[in-house]
Amino acid sequence: MPQFTITPVSDHLDIDIRNKIDLKTKPIGALGLLEDTAFTIARIQQTLTPSLNAPTIAVFAGDHGIAKTGLVNPYPQEVTYQMVMNFVKGGAAINVLSKQNNIDIKIIDAGVNYDFGTVDKLIDAKIAYGTANYLEGPAMTQAQCEQAIAKGAEIIQSIFNKGSNVVGFGEMGIGNTSAASLLMSVICDIPIADCVGKGTGANQEQLAGKIKTLQQVLEKHQDLDKANPIAILSTFGGFEIAQICGGMLKAAELGMIILVDGFICTAALLVAQMIEKAILDYCVFTHQSEEHGHQLMLKTINAKPLLQLGMRLGEGTGCAVAYPIVQSACTFLNEMASFEGAGVSQQSAI
Amino acid sequence: MPQFTITPVSDHLDIDIRNKIDLKTKPIGALGLLEDTAFTIARIQQTLTPSLNAPTIAVFAGDHGIAKTGLVNPYPQEVTYQMVMNFVKGGAAINVLSKQNNIDIKIIDAGVNYDFGTVDKLIDAKIAYGTANYLEGPAMTQAQCEQAIAKGAEIIQSIFNKGSNVVGFGEMGIGNTSAASLLMSVICDIPIADCVGKGTGANQEQLAGKIKTLQQVLEKHQDLDKANPIAILSTFGGFEIAQICGGMLKAAELGMIILVDGFICTAALLVAQMIEKAILDYCVFTHQSEEHGHQLMLKTINAKPLLQLGMRLGEGTGCAVAYPIVQSACTFLNEMASFEGAGVSQQSAI
Repeated sequence: MPQFTITPVSDHLDIDIRNKIDLKTKPIGALGLLEDTAFTIARIQQTLTPSLNAPTIAVFAGDHGIAKTGLVNPYPQEVTYQMVMNFVKGGAAINVLSKQNNIDIKIIDAGVNYDFGTVDKLIDAKIAYGTANYLEGPAMTQAQCEQAIAKGAEIIQSIFNKGSNVVGFGEMGIGNTSAASLLMSVICDIPIADCVGKGTGANQEQLAGKIKTLQQVLEKHQDLDKANPIAILSTFGGFEIAQICGGMLKAAELGMIILVDGFICTAALLVAQMIEKAILDYCVFTHQSEEHGHQLMLKTINAKPLLQLGMRLGEGTGCAVAYPIVQSACTFLNEMASFEGAGVSQQSAI
Repeated sequence: MPQFTITPVSDHLDIDIRNKIDLKTKPIGALGLLEDTAFTIARIQQTLTPSLNAPTIAVFAGDHGIAKTGLVNPYPQEVTYQMVMNFVKGGAAINVLSKQNNIDIKIIDAGVNYDFGTVDKLIDAKIAYGTANYLEGPAMTQAQCEQAIAKGAEIIQSIFNKGSNVVGFGEMGIGNTSAASLLMSVICDIPIADCVGKGTGANQEQLAGKIKTLQQVLEKHQDLDKANPIAILSTFGGFEIAQICGGMLKAAELGMIILVDGFICTAALLVAQMIEKAILDYCVFTHQSEEHGHQLMLKTINAKPLLQLGMRLGEGTGCAVAYPIVQSACTFLNEMASFEGAGVSQQSAI
């Protein structure tokens, strides 16, 4: 198992950062979550003048054994590789939204059930041609899980080496809301029905079937060691989720800002924070997905998301859309005048 | 009274716009409010390929007679002109956030109680040195109100003439949350206590005093004709609110996209939609302010705001921060691939 050493963020500068925010020409607290975000980022970087360099979103794709059964997913499994090709050609939501906001994207084959051969702009980190069906056994072996974590870490290290200090994570994988729901249910000890949503678009009847299927999965694996994050991840995870988990752990180790996307990426973070709790110090939560369960998932880790736009697309699109707001947090902290500097009177009593 | 002819937006292209959105490579509805916003903008522009040109935020500043009493405002009245100077020098939140997002800003003296002389970058549209105190009589005469509406319209016309098709409105005016609360209470027929918030930072005791004072104002003007928007605006409005009202009406007449900011700007819109209901077709609601009352105010006009960041600063900062999200709506509509174009399978039954 790869080891990660994540240093909890120091509170050394907290008072200075708070003072700098409060002396800007605005009522105390009037920039709301922009202030909280500025505080988080300044803390991570241990500076009063934080900067965002070479923002990158890494989109990990993988297939899920369960998806071949059609029991949980309204889209067929081949949509995973088709969408990967769409990413590579630049036509997906994550492409156009990242381009708009000058964010670099990396597309990673973590374990798609398709032979891409050599495709320009596609990073080959394939662990296998999709996971096994967890209705029958664990989704992957422990060795595969550890290999995936190491691969994800390696990819983020290379992004860091190119000068990035802020990285978003995205995913694609038909069936992966089911994996995320299972991880959430086990890690947060929440009944599966409260963890399952419509995914890419199941109707009420399909949703009921999805819950029933996942209940069977949990019964099948009831002897799982719930204190062992690698065992949990191996049992239910996708290769993309395991690589995201490893990538997030590496990003925190490197002191990068982690942009957390929606339901699946937050599930990867749930596993990561079991491995190293201090990872949460490095996270900015970009949005609350419309996927049922994400709100509760965020609550369990006390996360306040920046956006609630009713999005439920994945791919890292929440990171891409929210990124200008993360920039706004840095902008006001770095560029606004202070009361004294601008000659503006401060608050007095009525 | 200046006349405005606002054409309700045609539903002629509705089916085509919806189809274009639905055939993008994503599950139906998965981009949430981005889809609604794309729909609104494409409708306003009556095209399947909308564009945002020369985005501009017009920040109107004015003083309020009530603010001299100190009964409703924790900051002294001179903060209005001090902040106008801060805007002109580029040090305020609206300056740095607009600059970040390549938005041009215009600063307008609609009626500040200060003699600026000639200041570069400050547009002189002063109606008077602040309004009268509505505890004693109407805030302004009908003639002043109509003059302010005409001035606001003139300013937006000149922004349009320079090639802009999307305009945000911002404001500065110590005491203007009180004016907005009074407008809301009268126009929406909602008890004043539900329309009043802490403004720039009143504490609980100050808040109680503010409600009591505004209750007295309503009693003083109980014979007001509540079906007459000009009478209502003259009685409670600020000059900045009246100019914003006129500017919004002109923007809609010109077919521009109106970016609606927080509590005070939405109050100006409440008056504007009494004058011309069709103005609502041209609005994008950028955020829900933390100011108590804004949520309810938005609800009365069925507005779904893009952001809920807990901001309560005014100045048009909600417009500035949300603007990249408005861009994202256009970006996905114009640039994403369709299922057919990308060779991606569409949804099937489970």
